[in-house]
Amino acid sequence: MRNIKLILAYDGTAYHGFQRQANAMTVQQIVEERLARLFGHPLKLTGSARTDAKVHAYGQVVNFYTQGTIPAERIVLAAKGLLPPDIVVVDAAEEAPGFHARRSATGKVYRYRLLNTRLANPFERNYAWHISTRLDAALMHEAAQAVVGTHDFSAFRAAGGAPVSPVRTIMAAACREIGTSGIEFEFWGTGFLYHMVRNLVGTLVEVGGHRRTPGDFARVLAGGDRHAAGITAPPQGLYLIEVKY
Amino acid sequence: MRNIKLILAYDGTAYHGFQRQANAMTVQQIVEERLARLFGHPLKLTGSARTDAKVHAYGQVVNFYTQGTIPAERIVLAAKGLLPPDIVVVDAAEEAPGFHARRSATGKVYRYRLLNTRLANPFERNYAWHISTRLDAALMHEAAQAVVGTHDFSAFRAAGGAPVSPVRTIMAAACREIGTSGIEFEFWGTGFLYHMVRNLVGTLVEVGGHRRTPGDFARVLAGGDRHAAGITAPPQGLYLIEVKY
Repeated sequence: MRNIKLILAYDGTAYHGFQRQANAMTVQQIVEERLARLFGHPLKLTGSARTDAKVHAYGQVVNFYTQGTIPAERIVLAAKGLLPPDIVVVDAAEEAPGFHARRSATGKVYRYRLLNTRLANPFERNYAWHISTRLDAALMHEAAQAVVGTHDFSAFRAAGGAPVSPVRTIMAAACREIGTSGIEFEFWGTGFLYHMVRNLVGTLVEVGGHRRTPGDFARVLAGGDRHAAGITAPPQGLYLIEVKY
Repeated sequence: MRNIKLILAYDGTAYHGFQRQANAMTVQQIVEERLARLFGHPLKLTGSARTDAKVHAYGQVVNFYTQGTIPAERIVLAAKGLLPPDIVVVDAAEEAPGFHARRSATGKVYRYRLLNTRLANPFERNYAWHISTRLDAALMHEAAQAVVGTHDFSAFRAAGGAPVSPVRTIMAAACREIGTSGIEFEFWGTGFLYHMVRNLVGTLVEVGGHRRTPGDFARVLAGGDRHAAGITAPPQGLYLIEVKY
């Protein structure tokens, strides 16, 4: 059996997330169904990460096993004719039998986009979180440095997440202005809890709006109390950028 | 009666164009219906230009008459709560009684966006025309200069257009690379025939792909034969940027 790795980019607007669900359309289901035609048998994808409804990806990684003979380098163009235009296979490669999209991953990079303008932009409504009060990106960058290192992230963990350890390691966190109206966060970590990036951003924007100090933010992290943190930022600003192996 | 001018930005993806139609949802209908609640009476918008289904606007201008008393400067924020997120009122002002969004216009600026990458980008599918073969932007810019001035644009006129004079004046035409993967055309003219920008772009990309020379393009314009020109570029790359008065 060949083990095929794909890198997927998708606009998550129309989907109920990556992972297959019984009664809602997901990215996994679409890719499994459409690529099955190419390989001539049902496919079962393993994804590197769940992404929630309306969350996007530039670099979601999946793998699957096949006895099909299509060369890896032909999959990218063949998939183009089978998939809807909001899902693109950007790379395909054959991996060793033991490669596992989720368990082999050593890190992930997520980006979160804010649109910081007085008025909303109709072209950004599905691709960023619009905040009309002026935010201080440098102050958010300063505050975000508190998450770098190994910490208990209970304060930024969704209530409904799986019962796993709340300890995660973040290698880098950044916040920067993009042009005159955009602000982007980027987090590189070994792994992330459910809603962790969105909960971090929902609290960091309070720092950016001068409603908390960077010191307050560090104390929320250290305290481990979800109720002390801010809201969960909305899904449409979140992008899975890269999975590292 | 007060004469109110609005500048509208909209993502045209979900609409059958600007102008009201009997059996399809249009931008005009949505804005008329939603803003009627604000003014307390039915509104009749006059738009500066039709935009086709899936065509976008950053600066569509409309005007309407009202006896409502809401100050112009309050309309922008009030509209935000009434309109869907793909239509935004970016400015509102009171004009002299004779101001007419279409007839008072002295010029319009349209932009057309190409995505020139091997693979499609799922985030650009509704916002640019994806062309995977490499295009020469400098050569398209050179060719586009032929349209500057006053010309008979019959070669770039849609078959189904209104029976108006095919003569139009173009003040400026440009084509430039945006980053590593984008190419933008911009046309500033006193007026445009139906599908004219899309027909110009559909022919200019043949120059960019070295299938016609700039001289060929100029001869197509001079010849006035629609069949000698290229295809109509798809609607999702077109943006009404600005209307000049």
